[in-house]
Amino acid sequence: MTETFPSPSQSPRLSPTERSTVQRGKNRAVADRAVLHSILDAGLVCHLSTVVDGAPLVLPTGYGRDGDTLYLHGSTGARSLRTAAAGVEVCVAVTLVDGIVYARSVFHHSMNYRSAVIHGTAVPVTEPVAKIRALRALTDHMAPGSWEHARVPDAKELAATSVLALDLTEAAAKIRTGGPADDEEDIDAGAAWAGVLPLRQVWGAPEPCELLTGDFAVPAHVTARAVPARDR
Amino acid sequence: MTETFPSPSQSPRLSPTERSTVQRGKNRAVADRAVLHSILDAGLVCHLSTVVDGAPLVLPTGYGRDGDTLYLHGSTGARSLRTAAAGVEVCVAVTLVDGIVYARSVFHHSMNYRSAVIHGTAVPVTEPVAKIRALRALTDHMAPGSWEHARVPDAKELAATSVLALDLTEAAAKIRTGGPADDEEDIDAGAAWAGVLPLRQVWGAPEPCELLTGDFAVPAHVTARAVPARDR
Repeated sequence: MTETFPSPSQSPRLSPTERSTVQRGKNRAVADRAVLHSILDAGLVCHLSTVVDGAPLVLPTGYGRDGDTLYLHGSTGARSLRTAAAGVEVCVAVTLVDGIVYARSVFHHSMNYRSAVIHGTAVPVTEPVAKIRALRALTDHMAPGSWEHARVPDAKELAATSVLALDLTEAAAKIRTGGPADDEEDIDAGAAWAGVLPLRQVWGAPEPCELLTGDFAVPAHVTARAVPARDR
Repeated sequence: MTETFPSPSQSPRLSPTERSTVQRGKNRAVADRAVLHSILDAGLVCHLSTVVDGAPLVLPTGYGRDGDTLYLHGSTGARSLRTAAAGVEVCVAVTLVDGIVYARSVFHHSMNYRSAVIHGTAVPVTEPVAKIRALRALTDHMAPGSWEHARVPDAKELAATSVLALDLTEAAAKIRTGGPADDEEDIDAGAAWAGVLPLRQVWGAPEPCELLTGDFAVPAHVTARAVPARDR
């Protein structure tokens, strides 16, 4: 139960501020911006936290990345997000659980994971060209290939969608891999099994909408996703 | 991109307060406490949000449930959590993504998901018997069977672990299932594929620790987890 999910860690190239500086698990900090990007790209939803009437609020939220900008699907967030034209302070976390670490002691049980935590001010994206670019990033993240395949937003839909942009400057990434860190005495005692039970996300077979006309084949951008990269 | 993750919804039996009352996606609210429990039991990590120095902070955190109490692995949280003996206001979210909903328009793309959001005051669990009970709930959640199999915490480990308790009274659950909700004109046009690409988490084969002595067989509580319930 130690350091299952430590706080955001020191990461010179990622997190220059005090609040994104290590408190626990310094050895798991990752200072590479490419790693931050890879964690964000591998996730599907983020957890977006704001302060509303002095109290914390966290909600699952769709997102997309374009370089060092994270776009958030604002219409799903708190009311405060939708009205704060000047920007609102947020904290965003993306977490991928890669396995359970079984140790010889309950105390040393842990999880393997990749996590990213970003602090910053989220700003509404309102300029039409920028908004289209943001919506494309959101779509490319959630459903790669859909922007080219499906009908793109019209003016009314564009107006009905709220998008926030968050800079990735103040961010921390952390990764835990490998087996348990048991105490010497427990290893010597050999009284309990220890190891890792890996966990991964897999896509199932596409389920076509029953209202599809004729024999509409599942398009390549959907089938390609359903097949894990290593099996292609 | 509509209502991918609506805000916590009205749910008479779950959320009596204004802040956990519907803002969007009323039709996806779930008013059954058993559903809330099932979502929490199916998740592995929660996202724990607090206010630190006036700013939001969200971190992935291990948890466990015992009846209508959620236990949080406090040592992993913000410094504020560890010092607030009187309790600290938190918001906790657990989210399970079940699939991507491909619509005929980008605008109606969505996700299938189950989510729970809980508001409340997290209180440190310090009384030894209560703390053992809480650690057992945390262990049973992360690694069912480990409490019986591995060495349980000694006094020193118990002191080194911080646990918070959060009442599940003020909570909201929401579920989206099924295909896209496309516009009539897009359905008639038949210009794009639509459907759901399901997503699920699967356990891999157990990876024994290389320091295990002899031929330590993988115990049943680990192998049983690796096999999906429907395949047993």
